[in-house]
Amino acid sequence: MRWAFTMLKAVGPIRRIPRISNFLTACAISNFHNTKIVAFGSTCRVDNPPEDDPTLTTLLKAGTEAITLFGKSWTLHVTDVLRATLEENLQIIEDSCAWLKENGREVIYDAEHFFDGYKADPEYALETLLAAQAGGAEVLVLCDTNGGTMPYQIQEIISAIQPRLDVPLGIHTHNDAGMAVANSIVALEMGATHVQGTINGYGERCGNANLCSVIPNIEFKLGKTAIGAENLKRLMELSRFVSEIANVYHDHRQPYVGESAFAHKAGVHVDAMLKQPATYEHCDAEAVGNQRRFLLSEQSGGGAVAAKLHHLIPGLDKRHPTVQKLLQKIKQLEHEGYVFEAAEASFEILARQILGSIRRPFKLINYRTINRKSVAGSEVEAIVKIEIDGQIYHTVGEGDGPVNALDSALRLALESVYPTLKDVRLEDYKVRVLSSADGTAAKVRVLVESSDRQRVWNTVGVSENIIEASWMALVDSLTYKLLLDDIIVVG
Amino acid sequence: MRWAFTMLKAVGPIRRIPRISNFLTACAISNFHNTKIVAFGSTCRVDNPPEDDPTLTTLLKAGTEAITLFGKSWTLHVTDVLRATLEENLQIIEDSCAWLKENGREVIYDAEHFFDGYKADPEYALETLLAAQAGGAEVLVLCDTNGGTMPYQIQEIISAIQPRLDVPLGIHTHNDAGMAVANSIVALEMGATHVQGTINGYGERCGNANLCSVIPNIEFKLGKTAIGAENLKRLMELSRFVSEIANVYHDHRQPYVGESAFAHKAGVHVDAMLKQPATYEHCDAEAVGNQRRFLLSEQSGGGAVAAKLHHLIPGLDKRHPTVQKLLQKIKQLEHEGYVFEAAEASFEILARQILGSIRRPFKLINYRTINRKSVAGSEVEAIVKIEIDGQIYHTVGEGDGPVNALDSALRLALESVYPTLKDVRLEDYKVRVLSSADGTAAKVRVLVESSDRQRVWNTVGVSENIIEASWMALVDSLTYKLLLDDIIVVG
Repeated sequence: MRWAFTMLKAVGPIRRIPRISNFLTACAISNFHNTKIVAFGSTCRVDNPPEDDPTLTTLLKAGTEAITLFGKSWTLHVTDVLRATLEENLQIIEDSCAWLKENGREVIYDAEHFFDGYKADPEYALETLLAAQAGGAEVLVLCDTNGGTMPYQIQEIISAIQPRLDVPLGIHTHNDAGMAVANSIVALEMGATHVQGTINGYGERCGNANLCSVIPNIEFKLGKTAIGAENLKRLMELSRFVSEIANVYHDHRQPYVGESAFAHKAGVHVDAMLKQPATYEHCDAEAVGNQRRFLLSEQSGGGAVAAKLHHLIPGLDKRHPTVQKLLQKIKQLEHEGYVFEAAEASFEILARQILGSIRRPFKLINYRTINRKSVAGSEVEAIVKIEIDGQIYHTVGEGDGPVNALDSALRLALESVYPTLKDVRLEDYKVRVLSSADGTAAKVRVLVESSDRQRVWNTVGVSENIIEASWMALVDSLTYKLLLDDIIVVG
Repeated sequence: MRWAFTMLKAVGPIRRIPRISNFLTACAISNFHNTKIVAFGSTCRVDNPPEDDPTLTTLLKAGTEAITLFGKSWTLHVTDVLRATLEENLQIIEDSCAWLKENGREVIYDAEHFFDGYKADPEYALETLLAAQAGGAEVLVLCDTNGGTMPYQIQEIISAIQPRLDVPLGIHTHNDAGMAVANSIVALEMGATHVQGTINGYGERCGNANLCSVIPNIEFKLGKTAIGAENLKRLMELSRFVSEIANVYHDHRQPYVGESAFAHKAGVHVDAMLKQPATYEHCDAEAVGNQRRFLLSEQSGGGAVAAKLHHLIPGLDKRHPTVQKLLQKIKQLEHEGYVFEAAEASFEILARQILGSIRRPFKLINYRTINRKSVAGSEVEAIVKIEIDGQIYHTVGEGDGPVNALDSALRLALESVYPTLKDVRLEDYKVRVLSSADGTAAKVRVLVESSDRQRVWNTVGVSENIIEASWMALVDSLTYKLLLDDIIVVG
């Protein structure tokens, strides 16, 4: 048995190399040793013999071991898009497959719109598969190109065609009806051995089948091996890596690999989880490189807060006044727009302030940012005045924008007293507008991710002024580093 | 037949009223005339007779016509979480349902963890349903609380229990394996008549079944009536409304109601769509209040650009030099981080600049923003110097943040010359950090949505400086209003 996962969607065989190479990098970090680049293109045109067809000859020139060739299964597409006869279409499918095979390629045949084609004309749709099989295709991939097929239709149609084919089946689904993952799993359960999908489900319209859901479902639900337990532990890392490369927000609600996939918030669940972890999780978070999280929020009880503070004060009772005070403070700040789920370093600073186990690294006297733009160019400056142990530090910084300039000025002042801050790198900076009703006067939440090469932490700031919100998150970030280094811990 | 859609998840019957009332508002705008508020809580405790149980008495006090009562189906939960005997659990299920019925309530029984319970002990799981049925429950809702059940297991289990029950079935799924919508539809296809889900699939961990996918699937795929064709046309509006209230990013890849659900980008698809619209769409976008969109991007050919410009220059050929020049410019700007899919007003301004059919409403001489923060408070000021028809306008504005202040100053200058700008409201302001690798020095993209009470338009700005990016989007927004009002159109 062979498992094939395809990263879609190259339109032509050559022009999308950057995306392919990103996927290879992604595969490489996850030890997908069996990865193959596959060129992707259509069958030849009706008027061209395969050897003179520009698409087929370009596919060969790509020099890949395998080629995915897509052809038409739906009579509507043959007549209205391809503008060929039904018989001609069968011929070009068989000829194109055969010619690529003769040229030594492994041929993956994508039967485009297969399910819609089958619904319109079952016999003709099957004939297109038989033509690809006759041409020597190694696998016949049934495509739900428009994404409108239901799982029970997938079952019905595969049951009907399976006995009439000799070649293994593959599945290629789209998520237009929310069924991409379900339809893939149903086909695999029926014996298909090839899945086409994408990391995080990226793809046109509503996306392709999300391999980050399909792969763990194969392993945990179908009980088969897709990439193996060891590789599976890096799935979340891969998912985040690809989202970083694609420069797309990492969906925290994503099954298995989302930041919230194993997060427990409501009081009743957290209590049950503490009694018996299996009760509210369908699989082990660590098996996919994720982790269980207890979230703090309006809905959290003292139990969750006490559990969070366990590493600061072991055995702290959930009815302790400090826990209750912190809970009140969290509720108030969440109401203002803070999210501590995504800013655990800010939470720890807040908790330690209430516990009195931290001192502030500096006192702000004032800061100001000035941003000028004219035909001559632009200029961004920040001036910071702070006090550390009775001494005044007055610094100025420049930057691409006001936040960057403020960061420079603040560090200039702090680094002379706290040299380990030089190791802090801002890894990520996110801005979210909280209430859009007031246009540019809306509240913003800034989340900053920082690292010192060994550890990573997240902080938050909320204000109607984006610069002030950024300042708050920056100050928490630098404060947390000093906390980690045991410089400002009290008692 | 009765269709019930439940907005989850109230933890107690009273404390989450704000969320329930939001849902009611949402229902109201979509004419869901049959909406009922349903109180939600657990069966009584083992030691309490129903009439003395605080949960049940509070549920009654909520004063709702119907009550959703959840109980345990999984032996693990009975023994480890509830800490009761299996027999006691059956008794409290029956007694709780019966007591609520005696008090005149319609009882929806949620069999929590039903599928996991069935996998562990089929006979006991069924007995819990029979207990609820004996207690008089109107509907038995099978819950996949942990979200790990596959569609073929839903089929198998429902087939096995259906003949042994006399009461209609309901379905409640979670999306931990990406199956929430599929599992709901499979159950409905087998005859269930009650679905529990949420608008946009919001819910703990990976979410609940997304009603914005379930409802159109019922109508278009199962061929049954859920809310009817007229209400369905407001589904996208409802989805956006709830996302606005929940203050959560509206997922543009969401089936049916996502902004990208009917967006066609790759050149080959757009060409086919123009030939025959049904070929790449599984349902009509307008049926759910969405619309088909042709996107402009690196991958677009001249055909898509010409189609976009159709209302400016009817019959423009895709090989026309202006189309090619615009295509080049779009590719360059997209490379820098612009997205014209989400900023069609900025696209039109760009196109008209290249066509020479627009004049600039003003010339910038310079602007500057000053942001001060100290213990005494904060101060934000913007100063703008522009030229309109040889006349200099030098204005100052204040605001909550620098962008808001800049907006005030710019309007102060422009509104004296262009009074219709007073009608422009900024409806939404979004910030996206494009490359997080450089921390606070990363590039940002600002998207602004504006309206003049009659029309809505979107503009974009990209810069390493968030203030400059905001400025660009603001200027485009005001320029577009003047374009709509025919004030700066040339020729």
